[in-house]
Amino acid sequence: MSDAWPSRMRSEIDEIPAVVERALRDSAVDLRAAGDAVRRRRPSSVTLVGRGTSDHAGVYAQYVIETQLGLPTGLAKPSVTTTYGARVDWRRSLVLAISQSGRSPDVVAVVSAARETGALTVAVTNDETSPLANAAEIVLPCRAGEELAVPATKTYVAQLAILAGLVAALRPTGPLAAAVARVPDLLRAAIGRTDAWLAGDGGRCVDDLAASDRALLVSRGYNLATALELALKLKETSGLFAEAYSTADFAHGPSVLARAGVPTIAIRPDGEMGRHVDATLDGIDPARTTVLGGTDVAGRPNALALDADLPEALTPLLFVVPGQLLVEATARRLGISPDSPAGLRKVTLTR
Amino acid sequence: MSDAWPSRMRSEIDEIPAVVERALRDSAVDLRAAGDAVRRRRPSSVTLVGRGTSDHAGVYAQYVIETQLGLPTGLAKPSVTTTYGARVDWRRSLVLAISQSGRSPDVVAVVSAARETGALTVAVTNDETSPLANAAEIVLPCRAGEELAVPATKTYVAQLAILAGLVAALRPTGPLAAAVARVPDLLRAAIGRTDAWLAGDGGRCVDDLAASDRALLVSRGYNLATALELALKLKETSGLFAEAYSTADFAHGPSVLARAGVPTIAIRPDGEMGRHVDATLDGIDPARTTVLGGTDVAGRPNALALDADLPEALTPLLFVVPGQLLVEATARRLGISPDSPAGLRKVTLTR
Repeated sequence: MSDAWPSRMRSEIDEIPAVVERALRDSAVDLRAAGDAVRRRRPSSVTLVGRGTSDHAGVYAQYVIETQLGLPTGLAKPSVTTTYGARVDWRRSLVLAISQSGRSPDVVAVVSAARETGALTVAVTNDETSPLANAAEIVLPCRAGEELAVPATKTYVAQLAILAGLVAALRPTGPLAAAVARVPDLLRAAIGRTDAWLAGDGGRCVDDLAASDRALLVSRGYNLATALELALKLKETSGLFAEAYSTADFAHGPSVLARAGVPTIAIRPDGEMGRHVDATLDGIDPARTTVLGGTDVAGRPNALALDADLPEALTPLLFVVPGQLLVEATARRLGISPDSPAGLRKVTLTR
Repeated sequence: MSDAWPSRMRSEIDEIPAVVERALRDSAVDLRAAGDAVRRRRPSSVTLVGRGTSDHAGVYAQYVIETQLGLPTGLAKPSVTTTYGARVDWRRSLVLAISQSGRSPDVVAVVSAARETGALTVAVTNDETSPLANAAEIVLPCRAGEELAVPATKTYVAQLAILAGLVAALRPTGPLAAAVARVPDLLRAAIGRTDAWLAGDGGRCVDDLAASDRALLVSRGYNLATALELALKLKETSGLFAEAYSTADFAHGPSVLARAGVPTIAIRPDGEMGRHVDATLDGIDPARTTVLGGTDVAGRPNALALDADLPEALTPLLFVVPGQLLVEATARRLGISPDSPAGLRKVTLTR
């Protein structure tokens, strides 16, 4: 299918295994230095700053920092600094900004304000010469190369890899440090397996999404970030009214929508969290539900089972890629170029 | 219109001015004591914990605490504690839990874990004898009375009032402390003005929402909480696929949906933040856009202008009420009882 109309989005997804490999290898020295700086400053909390796709990388970072490092973590509301001009006391905080371009004015403003109050500021960005890189004390480059398609794919996974690498540097004997090097090969296998799936069972999921104007994405925990990111990609590329929910919030309203027959994509890791996701799926039509996840999803209808021999904390790097390929295929099925959806710009300059 | 089929949701909205008055008056001693405890413990960050509607009160709390008190604030991810069993170091944090029923197991679990690590824990709840009230060191009762309709209305505004009251107690010479007592009378006027509007221009907004299966809600800053809460109410009561966005994130995808003709409700405060919201509205059809806000929105089509002689930080207590009335009218127009939407329970027990 991809041969019929090769998109830049598709070729950038294909680069992801090599991008993650390079990000971890070439940034190893930067990651160790950043880890040392965090250890010296001993922050008592962490604030993440990002917009759009980078905000979803921030959601991942919140889970991984709280579970692996035990630091209370939150996501900044940039307008507190920009529009309201409040002075937040970030003296005891690590302020970790994430931006592909490094040019989002409000993200730069928060980092500058935080650095002035005495925060340790770290920027995860694809552009080492950007205003964000200049504003932050420490820069962690993603080294993802230029991204030409409007929907960010490889830069998102590169951001997750750098964030996981930072956590691994801060906890070198922890489960992430031991496993993160396996991610690139698992990504290569996942792309091959997704293509085979899209040519078979997964084709029905593409049909169902392309025939609908709405979609639900659900997960919980680390992969809530995956659900949020795939909902944004569906919105951006195909104009679907796609929304992501934590399965924990699903009973508070969205379940009404799922039961009304809106196609649902669940991201289901193995283990206890997977069983939480199952409890949500029980109430909705399996024929309209696509499940992307670990080995436990094998045997379900419309499921893609990836052999994720990884700690759950690293599965967001893997599970998002089949979803990106599903989104790309849905856009093409609709006759839309996924590379430059109508009316969207690559870099948004929110103040 | 409301006489034709009086709902409990409607009569509970009508109680809101008296509920806010009582919450502030009868909890004044509790609020001062909580303020003293926070001053003694000098937390360096704040973590909010809540689900559904209470999570939206948490979004409000994040803005108001960061802007008025300058403390870095974030929203907890309960599964970090419950499913992943991580031990987060909340020693230097204020952990502020919000729950109408006080019976959400995961909210209780986070508060218990936080208290064990040495956090100052405060519970904002309508039930002073609930497990949450027992788990927290300090209880701030909302005193909203029993709420019988499934969609929470008066308890949400009571939560906002208690949160604003806590901030006022911590900053007694600040703008909130001076203005919060004016809220009940402004609420009374707002309900009367909304009824008049719904009988006229606002009726077209009800028609448009009732004829659509989707809706967008947009705002930014303090009233992002209002947009999130009204989107949930529309989902719960009318099964609309309603979603809220910060106007700052709008350009990252949702703008595609708005231009496709999905009805949009904007919450627009006066001042600089209102001008930010305007920039988003410029691109979309004014005939499909309802604007709820301050005096500056007068003269717009489909706008309800409230005389909000209040600091912007208090307008979420006021602006949500016309929205609740609009949602209630939309459900009735669809022939749905807003009190007990199909398949939803009042208390969800997420673990």
